[in-house]
Amino acid sequence: MATYVLVHGAWHTGAELEATAAPIRAAGHKVYTPTLAGNRPGDAKTVGLNDAITSIVDYLAANDLKDVILLGHSYGGMIITGVADRVPERIHRLIYWNAFVPNNGESLNDLVPPIYVGLFDSIAAQRGDGSVVLPFPIWREAFINDGDLDLAQKAYGILNPHPLKTFSDKISLKTNPADMQIAKSYINCTEDTSLPHHYPWHPRLSQKLGLFRLVQVPGSHELCFSNPKRLAQAIMDAGRD
Amino acid sequence: MATYVLVHGAWHTGAELEATAAPIRAAGHKVYTPTLAGNRPGDAKTVGLNDAITSIVDYLAANDLKDVILLGHSYGGMIITGVADRVPERIHRLIYWNAFVPNNGESLNDLVPPIYVGLFDSIAAQRGDGSVVLPFPIWREAFINDGDLDLAQKAYGILNPHPLKTFSDKISLKTNPADMQIAKSYINCTEDTSLPHHYPWHPRLSQKLGLFRLVQVPGSHELCFSNPKRLAQAIMDAGRD
Amino acid sequence: MATYVLVHGAWHTGAELEATAAPIRAAGHKVYTPTLAGNRPGDAKTVGLNDAITSIVDYLAANDLKDVILLGHSYGGMIITGVADRVPERIHRLIYWNAFVPNNGESLNDLVPPIYVGLFDSIAAQRGDGSVVLPFPIWREAFINDGDLDLAQKAYGILNPHPLKTFSDKISLKTNPADMQIAKSYINCTEDTSLPHHYPWHPRLSQKLGLFRLVQVPGSHELCFSNPKRLAQAIMDAGRD
Repeated sequence: MATYVLVHGAWHTGAELEATAAPIRAAGHKVYTPTLAGNRPGDAKTVGLNDAITSIVDYLAANDLKDVILLGHSYGGMIITGVADRVPERIHRLIYWNAFVPNNGESLNDLVPPIYVGLFDSIAAQRGDGSVVLPFPIWREAFINDGDLDLAQKAYGILNPHPLKTFSDKISLKTNPADMQIAKSYINCTEDTSLPHHYPWHPRLSQKLGLFRLVQVPGSHELCFSNPKRLAQAIMDAGRD
Repeated sequence: MATYVLVHGAWHTGAELEATAAPIRAAGHKVYTPTLAGNRPGDAKTVGLNDAITSIVDYLAANDLKDVILLGHSYGGMIITGVADRVPERIHRLIYWNAFVPNNGESLNDLVPPIYVGLFDSIAAQRGDGSVVLPFPIWREAFINDGDLDLAQKAYGILNPHPLKTFSDKISLKTNPADMQIAKSYINCTEDTSLPHHYPWHPRLSQKLGLFRLVQVPGSHELCFSNPKRLAQAIMDAGRD
Repeated sequence: MATYVLVHGAWHTGAELEATAAPIRAAGHKVYTPTLAGNRPGDAKTVGLNDAITSIVDYLAANDLKDVILLGHSYGGMIITGVADRVPERIHRLIYWNAFVPNNGESLNDLVPPIYVGLFDSIAAQRGDGSVVLPFPIWREAFINDGDLDLAQKAYGILNPHPLKTFSDKISLKTNPADMQIAKSYINCTEDTSLPHHYPWHPRLSQKLGLFRLVQVPGSHELCFSNPKRLAQAIMDAGRD
């Protein structure tokens, strides 16, 4: 029996990973799905990257979790990298699921096409509370391309505005991921075009892990909505020793 | 119920898409499979790109088709791009299936490896009627690699000589695909080596669409022969809203 | 009925391909699984590339095999290229399964990331008998990432130390693979990260074949252990005319 902690991506909360957690629990594991600072109901949207990382460090301590298989989705890759740097003694393996892999001094915005940075800035400027949202056409075509319109709309309705500062803050790491003495896996959904395939998640970002285990699975960036059971199996394949 | 118009590739006619149309019709949609000027029995092989595009513009008008989901296969990508530029008011969504995506002023020959251009020119020079054919070994190994020899031979026997001028003519567009206000999808058959994978269909050409929905499916360039049912499902996944 | 000769990769023997040979035999074909000079029990680990190639040339002659579908896995790609150059009259088709494709004058070490060359040299220096072994973490994460730990350990226990000289020797060819008048196929396991995906088997090495048939199949570099039945089907799809 292993202990999984699943860290959601931008615009999500832990609740959206419950359907994925269920088959992992059914296989006999413990699964936690915390929500990051900045994405909890009522959180100020001025939260930065460090606060978000700290919220998971505190969560692991509060629940005294050890030997953790720590997964991060998308923006969650920034978080788990920061957590592993601060409390490596609690982590058994890192799993990046179509997730950002930062080195010291890099922000999420440093790892996406410049067109996204400009789009996020202009949307946040319009909103004025520090948060950014995804335009529905981008969500529907590039994030959840494997679902039907009904699923795309329902899932879009669940999303919460995301604090932009967590995208522009540069991470501070003592050790870059490739040099961390922790086992690592990368799950790549092969139809994930939330980052365009000419500027892809894998291998562009995954190779920054050094030695890692690749697990690939058909599906979009939002496999947690379109096929959580398939995602759960990929997570268990990525997480086993 | 949606209206699909499937535009075939070079050397094909609409008849070769009937096996693909059948499951789409069975799902309740209307499906049309016109044959392009230059590929109809008896057509002169001196037909150019503009004539081929016009033949589909005329077809849509003659049948008064509106709200069309317009698919182009391979060379058919040149055609649907030109059609969408001329009569955008008839088009609901474009689907490129391992298809060329031209910007204004580009020819099909501009988008393939130079080795193919030279090969086509030398074959056409030998034939002398303006047409080009594919050598069987290239067809068998790089176009229909997922079929057995019997299927490869039968399908090869159905092909018709293709007017070379449609490959060298440069397209004239008012609007490039990325700027068209029409939804777009790209279907990528993952074993399609009709363009070599170091100079691939996707993402090299698909990224010229701007925002688009990616659908990937196992199979060769000629999935319409090797697995039309699987292709039909991919088309419906690409075509839905 | 066809005749298959399956040539194993580094650290393996022919015995590890028996589970793959079984379903091919069950489909009515003859299958041979020779072991290369340097990998047979008792072989000196100072064997070079030419000796290993010769051992297969001799094997084909000793068994008077003709019209052979000759497959090479990984390092076995160096071998089958050399064999085809020496006795093309015996070969019907070459199949490279995530295998090296050398041109005249190239060594295996010339085709891998420099980090591997340094690793192999330092391991061999420690061993002192001319052989190199794979560290278990690399084997488990990058070679057999689709298996569980038990399978990874069992398979690792079967491996034999490999003569390093076969990696550094440059091959001598009269004809480069792209110019050989023999049909060629490339099987690419899509999760094979034994060469990293930013420096991949396919299309980086496969494109050196010129015209070839691509067959892709899910799995790691060691599909012979993790799913020999699926591998056997891929081999038959790659080997048929």
